[in-house]
Amino acid sequence: MSHDPDPPTHRFARRVPEGDNRQRLVCGECGFIAYENPKVVVGSVCAWRGRVLLCRRAIDPRSGYWTIPAGFLEQNETTAAGAMREAWEEAHARIEIDALLAVYSIPRLSQVQIMYRAALRDDNVSPGAESEDVRLFDWADIPWSDLAFPSVRWVLTHYRDVEGVPLFAARGNPPGEFGDR
Amino acid sequence: MSHDPDPPTHRFARRVPEGDNRQRLVCGECGFIAYENPKVVVGSVCAWRGRVLLCRRAIDPRSGYWTIPAGFLEQNETTAAGAMREAWEEAHARIEIDALLAVYSIPRLSQVQIMYRAALRDDNVSPGAESEDVRLFDWADIPWSDLAFPSVRWVLTHYRDVEGVPLFAARGNPPGEFGDR
Repeated sequence: MSHDPDPPTHRFARRVPEGDNRQRLVCGECGFIAYENPKVVVGSVCAWRGRVLLCRRAIDPRSGYWTIPAGFLEQNETTAAGAMREAWEEAHARIEIDALLAVYSIPRLSQVQIMYRAALRDDNVSPGAESEDVRLFDWADIPWSDLAFPSVRWVLTHYRDVEGVPLFAARGNPPGEFGDR
Repeated sequence: MSHDPDPPTHRFARRVPEGDNRQRLVCGECGFIAYENPKVVVGSVCAWRGRVLLCRRAIDPRSGYWTIPAGFLEQNETTAAGAMREAWEEAHARIEIDALLAVYSIPRLSQVQIMYRAALRDDNVSPGAESEDVRLFDWADIPWSDLAFPSVRWVLTHYRDVEGVPLFAARGNPPGEFGDR
């Protein structure tokens, strides 16, 4: 069988490449190694006049539960640009990123989550394709028991702790928590 | 040709999956999509009594130039654990991570770099397999013109700006810089 490198067509199997110490996906035809690496999730807590934007997920996992606008960073994208794109795709929200809130690791899922604080440019928001509803919540009304993921709870809590504080240290996971819930 | 799912053997070609808006690597036999995503680099500025640990790279890219201990995060690893592993692999250094210094995006390389401030537990360091030399540098002796990557310069500068400051805001890229130099 001929091997056409562009577009790439590979036949992968798992083995430990020479000089490495872990199994990788190695193409048996050309030797190309497809490294599997943790994925980056970018998101933002978006505020408008004291209220916070949440999206009710229309897709699995956790369909029907509330989350901040967040998703996988794409190739050749900066983390800030990715967070802005996700706010647009999930809530048609135009945002300005203000500060880094947190960097979380979810090792079970091989995820690194990079969370920003952002301001909405206006309150003209509506559900994107992956949301069944989007709403601006007063703090007292945040649906804590219907949040989609532990890290949504973490980042909202951190957001609240530094509300109005211009400069602050970004946080990591809460002590002893890894998102396994 | 039979398809053996475990260990996975796939024949990938680039096409836009249904419901997506970007080309992905799709297996023509089983439909598995191998998403290509930005990779996470984790590293740390490691200090010992006012001196900073640098490693002279023994491998390309930028073999012979100086860097902080840093490398690709592995699957199921937290960012802090990855930074500690890299310090050990590259300099046989045992470190304690203290604070998040920076999150940089290098969009040309689809990299997100997560950089910590760390303390060496002792000054017993030696070159790992990917280093040809490791040294503790006084600030005045840092080889600025022989640093391996722009982000090494960025993070050392940020480290110096917050030396002795217990809590500070993590930085992003310097304005207008994307590591292309």
